[in-house]
Amino acid sequence: MTLKTPYLMFLGDAADQLAAKTAAGVVHWRPDACIGQLRLDGCNADLGLTDMTLEEAADAGAKTVIVGVANRGGIISAAWTEVLVAAIEAGFDIASGLHNRLGDVPEIAAAAEKHGATLTDARHPTRSFDVASGVKRPGKRLLPVGTDCSVGKMYTALAMEREMRARGMKASFRATGQTGIFIAGDGVSVDAVVADFISGATEWLTPANDEDHWDLVEGQGSLFHASYAGVSLGLLHGAQPDALVLCHEPTRTHMRGLPGYPIPDLKACIEANERAAHLTNPAAVCIGVAINTKDLPAGEVEGYLKGVEDELGLPAVDPVATGVGALVDNLPA
Amino acid sequence: MTLKTPYLMFLGDAADQLAAKTAAGVVHWRPDACIGQLRLDGCNADLGLTDMTLEEAADAGAKTVIVGVANRGGIISAAWTEVLVAAIEAGFDIASGLHNRLGDVPEIAAAAEKHGATLTDARHPTRSFDVASGVKRPGKRLLPVGTDCSVGKMYTALAMEREMRARGMKASFRATGQTGIFIAGDGVSVDAVVADFISGATEWLTPANDEDHWDLVEGQGSLFHASYAGVSLGLLHGAQPDALVLCHEPTRTHMRGLPGYPIPDLKACIEANERAAHLTNPAAVCIGVAINTKDLPAGEVEGYLKGVEDELGLPAVDPVATGVGALVDNLPA
Repeated sequence: MTLKTPYLMFLGDAADQLAAKTAAGVVHWRPDACIGQLRLDGCNADLGLTDMTLEEAADAGAKTVIVGVANRGGIISAAWTEVLVAAIEAGFDIASGLHNRLGDVPEIAAAAEKHGATLTDARHPTRSFDVASGVKRPGKRLLPVGTDCSVGKMYTALAMEREMRARGMKASFRATGQTGIFIAGDGVSVDAVVADFISGATEWLTPANDEDHWDLVEGQGSLFHASYAGVSLGLLHGAQPDALVLCHEPTRTHMRGLPGYPIPDLKACIEANERAAHLTNPAAVCIGVAINTKDLPAGEVEGYLKGVEDELGLPAVDPVATGVGALVDNLPA
Repeated sequence: MTLKTPYLMFLGDAADQLAAKTAAGVVHWRPDACIGQLRLDGCNADLGLTDMTLEEAADAGAKTVIVGVANRGGIISAAWTEVLVAAIEAGFDIASGLHNRLGDVPEIAAAAEKHGATLTDARHPTRSFDVASGVKRPGKRLLPVGTDCSVGKMYTALAMEREMRARGMKASFRATGQTGIFIAGDGVSVDAVVADFISGATEWLTPANDEDHWDLVEGQGSLFHASYAGVSLGLLHGAQPDALVLCHEPTRTHMRGLPGYPIPDLKACIEANERAAHLTNPAAVCIGVAINTKDLPAGEVEGYLKGVEDELGLPAVDPVATGVGALVDNLPA
């Protein structure tokens, strides 16, 4: 899949800002690609973009309507369907991060068929993949890994891509989840591929490249998450990372969605990921730590990062607060 | 899925005995359930069952035609389709281990619709699963794990189920692959579920049970296989095994399908599996080793098993040659 830009961001009747988290992430990282937002009655989210009708967005050059919002009750409502069909009739493609497939709504499927629109369900890979070969390929790869889910792995990869490009380095973010896919314009939702092909899909996503080119691969889950560790391991093996960054959120009291499962120790988490990574890349090494400090008291951030650096002997950054320069500085040659 | 017995084993025009490996496995473990075989012109495989027409099999009480054979070129040929449609018209259900789906052949789909036959594609889970909860459930579970793929994990689980039942213990084989599913009559192909649900599907397959009941869970792949380790880890976490058995084939020179990837050391493999298993069951322990010695010179088998026992301090058996009694003897209370 490759999404045509620019995007019109569809927020529907989002209950609150959190429901539009995916859309907000796209706007943050691709402000140039997001030329307007379309909100329905009852929408309580705001991306800070110009509100546009479909016609205004088409006139402004928008090519794809991005449904980057959680829908209430998992149903694509009649009100949404009406707007999406009108968008297709106006010449837009539609890309959705919903669990439901766009093409499962008969009116949307019929309109897309009639008008030749492309429907992209970012959560559902449509192509098939080969089983991973395990063969080493040229180019360098970095994978952020986590103590838990939702601790800043995508943000870290994107921030590193930006920093590396600013330094004139060859760097490409490789998206493995829906928000990342909207940001990059393509990618594969690796947690949605058939289990046998997790590593194979990752090899496909991060192909042979120049020896001095870095893929910044979006991480998923955690080797210590009892629900998703299989995805994390398959991604780790397929990415064959030269470098790992450990991502962590220090106020989490248990693994996301799993009361009773403690957050792993940072050192143990690094060792487990390095050990597993060595199967497909014996040179894999953790080059730093990215801490999401947003819920730490402001006065404690500096001391916390210093403590992690001292304990692990690795640079520790907050990608938002301090930037990721220290991580880029520590990449292997 | 639950398959109706007894089975008529369909061998088609199998090129050789190896092409009928799945069917041969079912006959070995469920001789009572396999009342005949149906072979087409050019078939070079033989299960040692009575050759039957569809009519003879129906008269003998057969309920399901099992397609336990690899098809040439991955195509369901016209000759096969004709027989399978005739079977449906004669009242049979069809269960297939092919990569292709039965329902993708229009004639087969139409006949099944018309006659109310159940089509089961054992490689393709049809139900959906929840994400794994990680919550401990009553009952005991054993999972064979491997140094590599295809080293005897299914055989070990089935042999242990038989031995334990013979001793009056409560034991259930839980199938995670196509051959196992035909043998057990139900199960889930865990390598074919969507990646996010590997562990969740395994939790579903091995539900709460009596405290003294053992699930013997069919293992898949290896933590050391660069293509499939994600599946193996998700299965390990979802099964929450109390006991592991390491399975190994000592003449293998590299990982299956991966030239250049060495077979892991037995001790390292046990340690890696125990460490990973401890996430969802801190009591998980390897209780023995199952060696597939069929390619060892006859004079070396005894010495090899003795050497493994001495090195690891665990019972080492060949499930075929020595039986699995020593593994059952070593189960935790």
